[in-house]
Amino acid sequence: MSESQHPTVPGFRFSATACGVKPDGQLDLGLIVADDPVSVAGMFTKNRVKAAPVTLSMQRIERGRSQALIVNSGNANACTGKKGMEDAKVITSIIADEMGVADDMVMMASTGVIGMPLPSERIEEALPDLLKTARPDRIDEFARAIMTTDRWPKVSSIKFPIGYEKEATVLGIAKGAGMIHPDMATTLGFILTDAPMHSSFLQRALSTAVDRTFNRLTVDGCTSTNDSIYAFSSSRVETEPLRGSDRDARRFIDALVDVLGELGKRIVQDGEGAKHVVTLEVVGAPSEDAARKVGEQIARSTLVKAAIWGRDPNWGRMMAAAGMAGVAFDPLKVEIKFGKVAVVKKGIRVGRTAEEEARRVMAESSYRITMKLGPGKAKASYLFCDMGEDYLRLNASYRS
Amino acid sequence: MSESQHPTVPGFRFSATACGVKPDGQLDLGLIVADDPVSVAGMFTKNRVKAAPVTLSMQRIERGRSQALIVNSGNANACTGKKGMEDAKVITSIIADEMGVADDMVMMASTGVIGMPLPSERIEEALPDLLKTARPDRIDEFARAIMTTDRWPKVSSIKFPIGYEKEATVLGIAKGAGMIHPDMATTLGFILTDAPMHSSFLQRALSTAVDRTFNRLTVDGCTSTNDSIYAFSSSRVETEPLRGSDRDARRFIDALVDVLGELGKRIVQDGEGAKHVVTLEVVGAPSEDAARKVGEQIARSTLVKAAIWGRDPNWGRMMAAAGMAGVAFDPLKVEIKFGKVAVVKKGIRVGRTAEEEARRVMAESSYRITMKLGPGKAKASYLFCDMGEDYLRLNASYRS
Repeated sequence: MSESQHPTVPGFRFSATACGVKPDGQLDLGLIVADDPVSVAGMFTKNRVKAAPVTLSMQRIERGRSQALIVNSGNANACTGKKGMEDAKVITSIIADEMGVADDMVMMASTGVIGMPLPSERIEEALPDLLKTARPDRIDEFARAIMTTDRWPKVSSIKFPIGYEKEATVLGIAKGAGMIHPDMATTLGFILTDAPMHSSFLQRALSTAVDRTFNRLTVDGCTSTNDSIYAFSSSRVETEPLRGSDRDARRFIDALVDVLGELGKRIVQDGEGAKHVVTLEVVGAPSEDAARKVGEQIARSTLVKAAIWGRDPNWGRMMAAAGMAGVAFDPLKVEIKFGKVAVVKKGIRVGRTAEEEARRVMAESSYRITMKLGPGKAKASYLFCDMGEDYLRLNASYRS
Repeated sequence: MSESQHPTVPGFRFSATACGVKPDGQLDLGLIVADDPVSVAGMFTKNRVKAAPVTLSMQRIERGRSQALIVNSGNANACTGKKGMEDAKVITSIIADEMGVADDMVMMASTGVIGMPLPSERIEEALPDLLKTARPDRIDEFARAIMTTDRWPKVSSIKFPIGYEKEATVLGIAKGAGMIHPDMATTLGFILTDAPMHSSFLQRALSTAVDRTFNRLTVDGCTSTNDSIYAFSSSRVETEPLRGSDRDARRFIDALVDVLGELGKRIVQDGEGAKHVVTLEVVGAPSEDAARKVGEQIARSTLVKAAIWGRDPNWGRMMAAAGMAGVAFDPLKVEIKFGKVAVVKKGIRVGRTAEEEARRVMAESSYRITMKLGPGKAKASYLFCDMGEDYLRLNASYRS
């Protein structure tokens, strides 16, 4: 994906550098700066153990205004005690001073190994140049600078009509491959838009869109100390600020869902060592909550994920996982399909031929599994991936 | 482990055969018969999807009396619809007829692949011989007949003083390697004793002992459709039936905890592809429930399990997993030790030398990890194992 593919967003500039947090000269420091103070919203990990930059930014975002965000990869600055918080404050303070804004207008995010002291001097020394070299089109470099175990950078964008014959842009940049699980924003995600709005509307729109996208995907069931998703609006498009649920507000939320949905899909595709992305549809449930609970149990099951990896239509493991969800359903009413191939009807096996056909579906890099629980009307979908040897190899030696 | 190592339990006989449920001539059918009707108790999977033999036995065990139990391996008889229930009824009925007892005096347990029709004729044909060849000392063959992915049979026993200069025996036989997780009895477990008691006391004692043992271990976080643990008492020792919490009752419960604890440890050691068994002690918690929740999150985390496999003292993943438990604790008060080596004090890293020492601890086949959450007085322990490539290889191709 070349830089020219991504539209710039009026009001925002990006930069990136390799400052030496990562040992091998890879990009590891990224900056987003706004030309003026902008509206900001955020969602953060619900993990009890939060990294220093998360704690700091959660306090600062309360104001709803921001003008810069600094991200380092290679070190999470989590479980680093007082020194970790000092580091985050000093780094953001240097940026604020250089820009001539208040300290709390600068946010920070970090991603990488937990529990190692942040080599903050290296970051501090790189900041002046980072600020000077920020440009509207350095999006791809920024996306690369926030990667850890990601195999590729993740950028998605959309334009939508707004106001009277005007157009707004939503640009999203994310990192994430392992440790993706609901009940958190994501690993790291950044949304930039020029559609006009106050931070209160931006926060509501972000929550709505994240609930429909990032909170419905899982790689390995683990949540991190650093997960954060930010949204910034430069409000450069000259029209009424979005509010409530009018037409433009709905269009913006649709655009957000589109961009976050696409980023989420790329994160699951990039699941550490993953070869197959599965869209699991749980239908016929008594409630949406029930459908989600069943979907989550299946998507989190290591036995199911190992079967997906081995291309084995082992629907019995899906039944057993569904049965763990604490949801009332009649096993004798369950139907399961791989793609269009039904392997279970009325709770029992269709037969060997159907399973052979399902095996062919499972050779695809992405496919759909549908589990019908019963006669209910509610449904939910879930995105997950297989778990193979590469996942273990990578995670056994990640720190070495 | 030779047969002579296991003490017989007066009143019980065992047999085993290879009837062809497993394709390769391995033992796959086991029988326990009692000379007379005996007290029986049971704990069963809480999974919503229950195998036919589980549903049948849960009904029959209500009476508190039994005289035989048949177990097949190689096929779970789960998600097999009406035919599955018919099969379980016919099989137990044949045994009842041969023995001249009522149908509901015979229990059944199954373990193996979910969703495949049970080749019940093969089992039915094998039953008369199985009954004829039952002997008090065929314990080891029975233990082998109930194995699926187990690498070795699991038998444990203890004798304890009872009444006036008398002695009673508790013998336990279990199968299990994958799919072991709390909130279920276990995969399959069978306890036999000659200590005298009514079924109501036996049920209470079993619940107490399982809560302290099998409900504190995890291999992969998945529970099955077939998990069952049975206890039978022939009451052959001539003394007062155990009741309440008198001395003999306490001794029996201690013996049960000892036998189930030993079986549980062997199941975790046999975790599919596992190389390391870790006893995780969560201490300094505000409540036992809090300690258990934290322990469960750590023991279930695939990232932690991959790090254990890779001998990486990646305590940051343990912190992140603990933070998912929904338990209030101050990360800056946490201490973590591998064996006696502290790698985290006051929530931060001790240093590289300590981690090198921890790495040496992690080379052991079994070791202890202690996580101190804070100044609380409560604690809980958890048994778990690593997750390596063998787990995935085995579970990707289990049905093939």
